Amino acid sequence: MKKILKNAYVLMSADAEIKKMDILIENGIIIEIEENIENEDNTVELIDLKDKLILPGFINTHTHLAMSLFRGIGDDLTLKEWLFDVMFPREELLTDELTYYGSLISTMEMLSKGTTTIVDMYLFMNGTAEAVKDLGVRAYLTRGLGYDNDEGWKRRIDETIELFEKYHNKYNIKVGFGPHAPYTCPMNKLEEIAELTEKYDTFATIHLYEAKHERDMYSFEDLEKTGLFKNNVIAAHCVHVDDKDMKILARNEITVAHNPSSNLKLGNGIAPIIKMLEHEINVTLGTDGAASNNTLNLWEEMRLAALLQKSYGPEKFKTEEALRMVWENGGYALNEKIGRIEEGYKADFAVIDINNIEFYPVDLNRLKSHIVYSAPSNRVYATMVNGEWVYYNGEFPKLKENNYYEKFHELYTNLENKIKEKE
Amino acid sequence: MKKILKNAYVLMSADAEIKKMDILIENGIIIEIEENIENEDNTVELIDLKDKLILPGFINTHTHLAMSLFRGIGDDLTLKEWLFDVMFPREELLTDELTYYGSLISTMEMLSKGTTTIVDMYLFMNGTAEAVKDLGVRAYLTRGLGYDNDEGWKRRIDETIELFEKYHNKYNIKVGFGPHAPYTCPMNKLEEIAELTEKYDTFATIHLYEAKHERDMYSFEDLEKTGLFKNNVIAAHCVHVDDKDMKILARNEITVAHNPSSNLKLGNGIAPIIKMLEHEINVTLGTDGAASNNTLNLWEEMRLAALLQKSYGPEKFKTEEALRMVWENGGYALNEKIGRIEEGYKADFAVIDINNIEFYPVDLNRLKSHIVYSAPSNRVYATMVNGEWVYYNGEFPKLKENNYYEKFHELYTNLENKIKEKE
Repeated sequence: MKKILKNAYVLMSADAEIKKMDILIENGIIIEIEENIENEDNTVELIDLKDKLILPGFINTHTHLAMSLFRGIGDDLTLKEWLFDVMFPREELLTDELTYYGSLISTMEMLSKGTTTIVDMYLFMNGTAEAVKDLGVRAYLTRGLGYDNDEGWKRRIDETIELFEKYHNKYNIKVGFGPHAPYTCPMNKLEEIAELTEKYDTFATIHLYEAKHERDMYSFEDLEKTGLFKNNVIAAHCVHVDDKDMKILARNEITVAHNPSSNLKLGNGIAPIIKMLEHEINVTLGTDGAASNNTLNLWEEMRLAALLQKSYGPEKFKTEEALRMVWENGGYALNEKIGRIEEGYKADFAVIDINNIEFYPVDLNRLKSHIVYSAPSNRVYATMVNGEWVYYNGEFPKLKENNYYEKFHELYTNLENKIKEKE
Repeated sequence: MKKILKNAYVLMSADAEIKKMDILIENGIIIEIEENIENEDNTVELIDLKDKLILPGFINTHTHLAMSLFRGIGDDLTLKEWLFDVMFPREELLTDELTYYGSLISTMEMLSKGTTTIVDMYLFMNGTAEAVKDLGVRAYLTRGLGYDNDEGWKRRIDETIELFEKYHNKYNIKVGFGPHAPYTCPMNKLEEIAELTEKYDTFATIHLYEAKHERDMYSFEDLEKTGLFKNNVIAAHCVHVDDKDMKILARNEITVAHNPSSNLKLGNGIAPIIKMLEHEINVTLGTDGAASNNTLNLWEEMRLAALLQKSYGPEKFKTEEALRMVWENGGYALNEKIGRIEEGYKADFAVIDINNIEFYPVDLNRLKSHIVYSAPSNRVYATMVNGEWVYYNGEFPKLKENNYYEKFHELYTNLENKIKEKE
């Protein structure tokens, strides 16, 4: 089925200029981008997007979808209290049903903000896989891995492989490996993950140097020796890297997933993004989970990422850099034709209504600035993944269930009641 | 005319608990807050706000409304380039008509985010006064004052007094004095402002220690000697204050208007709010103008203010502190019964729809957290000032003009064309 998106303004990539263009899509792929594409074929669906601006869909390279269940508790606690007193007891009570509804709510929030690709690491990933499948988002899923004993480790590896066999390259899902962090996965276990990631020809994602004290727990030199970095790896956070660490990230072409809100909120500080860019490291953006952000809005992350780097000089971090982090750099990280509007690329779009106070003055030369600095609170009009609408003017066309919020609320209430009983 | 707001959840103040309450209003004042107010009088207007949450209206203590005209230019420039190459040439071309439409657009953005009170300092303030009057927002207006020569200074003082006589205590407007900064107003001129502020029994607002180099230009000891601090003063920014400066602010009961987005964006850094609170300084929030933020959304400022202070320890800055900064502390700064929902207070409200993904899970115990950390991109349902709707579900009931955006765009385009001709 062919579709033509007509009459919209289009920003093809971070460095492009905004122009009025039509886009022809077939089988989820962008076939043609021209000023005026004639409809020579009655079977083509014409979609009029006058006064709209089409952007590449946003790529969220680090999150924990199911954690919307835990949004709004433990905000003003120390990292230790937050983790041990609030998160861990709740995570022990998770089920696939809970992660399904938690992931559904999080993914809906993201789609309503124009996010089209999600990289996730968490528990009970079958629930998350079903949720992203039901909503139609592009997702890179990993079962979080930590070592406690051989039996537990093996069970979690087996779960990853089951997830891989069930979902990898089906729907819009890919499955990779998710070693949680070097302080939960010893170096010999990371070696094992390195081999598995290569064997299954997939990606891996890991938390690195999120908190400062991690510098005393492991080194990037040791990490490099495990062989993990030979694979396609997304390293979340990297707040406390030094020059030597950045050289290791750069020479291994490791992507850094920068999570500015979460890093501030948990008191971990500000990652030196300007320096990473000097090292030519591929930097992308993530929201992290709703328990430590607490909104899943990449517009907020773009704005915050840019604002925080201005301390190096307001002229050092350009508007386009923030856009690249949610677009092209995400596509590069995932080795996928996403993050640009270009012939041959996947038809993943965020469509916004520029007739909106946050975009005033509407001036094609200022719209990129508005996107990064003024628009986080704008409402996205529609979101497309693989040529299909996954969000459209308040609705989620692919979702069949209607009473998702009632179910989410019921499950979440049961979970909180169990926590209360324990206390 | 009496009104009863019925069936809504109400958060009366930062430290209160959210409860279902009815609110009776008469002549713009809150008369009664009870669980169920009976309507014994047919002339009472009943307003059903089921599933809505009523908050005190937000108080924006530092902005330059007309600057929406300059939104999205000069974002990635040094402070000097931004000021001298971009802002000053445009400010020279301003007129009351331009500031009217610029202020209209900015105020509309603020009303649509639940802001009910604005403290402004800028040029051509008759335009701004007419705009805030036409929209019905509560406004504290000052004509920005700087000293170039005696004639220029006198003209600007005269303009302030004219503005005072025309608008002070009329509509919802108060007029005060707006010495721009100690580096544009010498100390003897600040003495004059101190006397005038006392004579007219009004407030003053000034930029202090926004950029680090200002520490070399003047001292807080000298400022205190001018007598200015004996008045009701809002000091914007104060990013680079030390302990000694904070003691001076505290003993004079000076309010600090904290502008976290603008301070980051212009590369000025992060104000030490945690320390100010230890000194018991009254801290409020401002968006600054749309040329340095670039959105005029106090929800964003609350979230950012909280996140930025987490570096002192995530447990040090509480959710309620951020709420106080836009509510009670604003009321205290302006010596006005605003910023709380309490009998005898003005009926200034932000009404939000909590059936919204950013508020999930909807749990009365978590809603305060959601307001600060998750909700900046929510859409406010309605905004009330002095008992009257000034924003309601996308509309601005008090505004008579329809083609405001066309007019704004035309004037802004003319201005930019003049700039191009000059270059």
